[in-house]
Amino acid sequence: MHTRFILIETSHAGNVGATARAMRVMGFDDLVLVRPRWANVLRREETIQRASGALNVLENARIVDTLDEALDGMTHMCATAMTPRDFGPPTRAPREHFAQLPAQGDAGGGMAFLFGSERFGMKNEDVYRCNVALSIPTDPNFGSLNIAGAVQVIAYEWRLALGGYAVQDAVATSVQADAAQIAGLLSHWQQSLIDIGFLDPQAPKKLMPRLNQLFNRAALSEEEVHILRGIAKAMTQASQRKS
Amino acid sequence: MHTRFILIETSHAGNVGATARAMRVMGFDDLVLVRPRWANVLRREETIQRASGALNVLENARIVDTLDEALDGMTHMCATAMTPRDFGPPTRAPREHFAQLPAQGDAGGGMAFLFGSERFGMKNEDVYRCNVALSIPTDPNFGSLNIAGAVQVIAYEWRLALGGYAVQDAVATSVQADAAQIAGLLSHWQQSLIDIGFLDPQAPKKLMPRLNQLFNRAALSEEEVHILRGIAKAMTQASQRKS
Repeated sequence: MHTRFILIETSHAGNVGATARAMRVMGFDDLVLVRPRWANVLRREETIQRASGALNVLENARIVDTLDEALDGMTHMCATAMTPRDFGPPTRAPREHFAQLPAQGDAGGGMAFLFGSERFGMKNEDVYRCNVALSIPTDPNFGSLNIAGAVQVIAYEWRLALGGYAVQDAVATSVQADAAQIAGLLSHWQQSLIDIGFLDPQAPKKLMPRLNQLFNRAALSEEEVHILRGIAKAMTQASQRKS
Repeated sequence: MHTRFILIETSHAGNVGATARAMRVMGFDDLVLVRPRWANVLRREETIQRASGALNVLENARIVDTLDEALDGMTHMCATAMTPRDFGPPTRAPREHFAQLPAQGDAGGGMAFLFGSERFGMKNEDVYRCNVALSIPTDPNFGSLNIAGAVQVIAYEWRLALGGYAVQDAVATSVQADAAQIAGLLSHWQQSLIDIGFLDPQAPKKLMPRLNQLFNRAALSEEEVHILRGIAKAMTQASQRKS
């Protein structure tokens, strides 16, 4: 499903640049500006600086005079509004709304996210055209979300709703030690702890069960079992040197 | 569970201000800066401007020399890292990680989110101290997420994991029309469509079932049924005036 971000009457060039970056990092690149304060906003220094490399979004961006032009080809329009209105489309949190949309990608069409000006938000008449008013849940005592921050959250949620990107774990997957290896480790430690005089075999109390629980909770890898056995070995050797 | 955001060696004052705002809007106010580039960063003009009213976060913020001081009292440390490392804690997406944490709020303790410098990210040795490396899933071709954008996404996800804020729908809840009301509406329309000559009762084709499906899909409210019946009535009246 094609996705478009529409900024209406945006004042700050920095916000346009930051919006481009926030979109790009989530893989979106269709930006339309309706009557921005600065006609040359796409080429202003602050815009380019805050876009921080997301230049293709700025290059592709269109500036238009009316919301009609901006909505060309769109089929599902999401207003963003911090203050609920007493008429208009239902207000929903982004995650909740995206979860109940029909599966994407089959029917074509376009998803548009609309953001009003920094000072005044969206006009009622623009909100009325939308299918839903998305409201990012914020602290009731401080709802002042930066426009680029709002774009970042919406772009992030929508990307996840579309299937998301993978997070790669480059840490080598370690094999978790099994119960037998833990048992072997414990008996090794038991002997070494006796050797160094920490464990009294006549009054062992709960020391070994405690270590057993600690090792279980840590979900030890095989490699870590080897390290801990090495420590046990060194304990025993140290105790023998001492005596 | 107490939550702290820690910025390590942050260069740009604007990012400190935007971070304060991003935290505040999600109800967090504990910010610690480790060796920021500007000693007076909490009072710089750009910081205050970008904080946009989240001044209590800046007022509460501490500046420290070492990560040790910043981590005071914290029990679960989350690194944020865009590039996976070949050693260290597991890399996970924020939502996935938060979902598998034990229920919050009972055991006390503190959750710390660590963010490295804009240019170099987090040092390996700092990442190694953490329980997890959080990675926000981004476009593989453009992973350059602004630090305040990253704070916004993490703060948003973590707030939702902690139970979230309500989104209020001020739109008066409308009562959905039931099947009988829809059936009444349809027979009213059927007559009016005959009256205006659009529906041929001898060859009705699938017009009424189509309208029935459209009305069902629209999940009409009782009020909307009244409006549509008013239209039907006006259609009939108009047809009588004509003849």
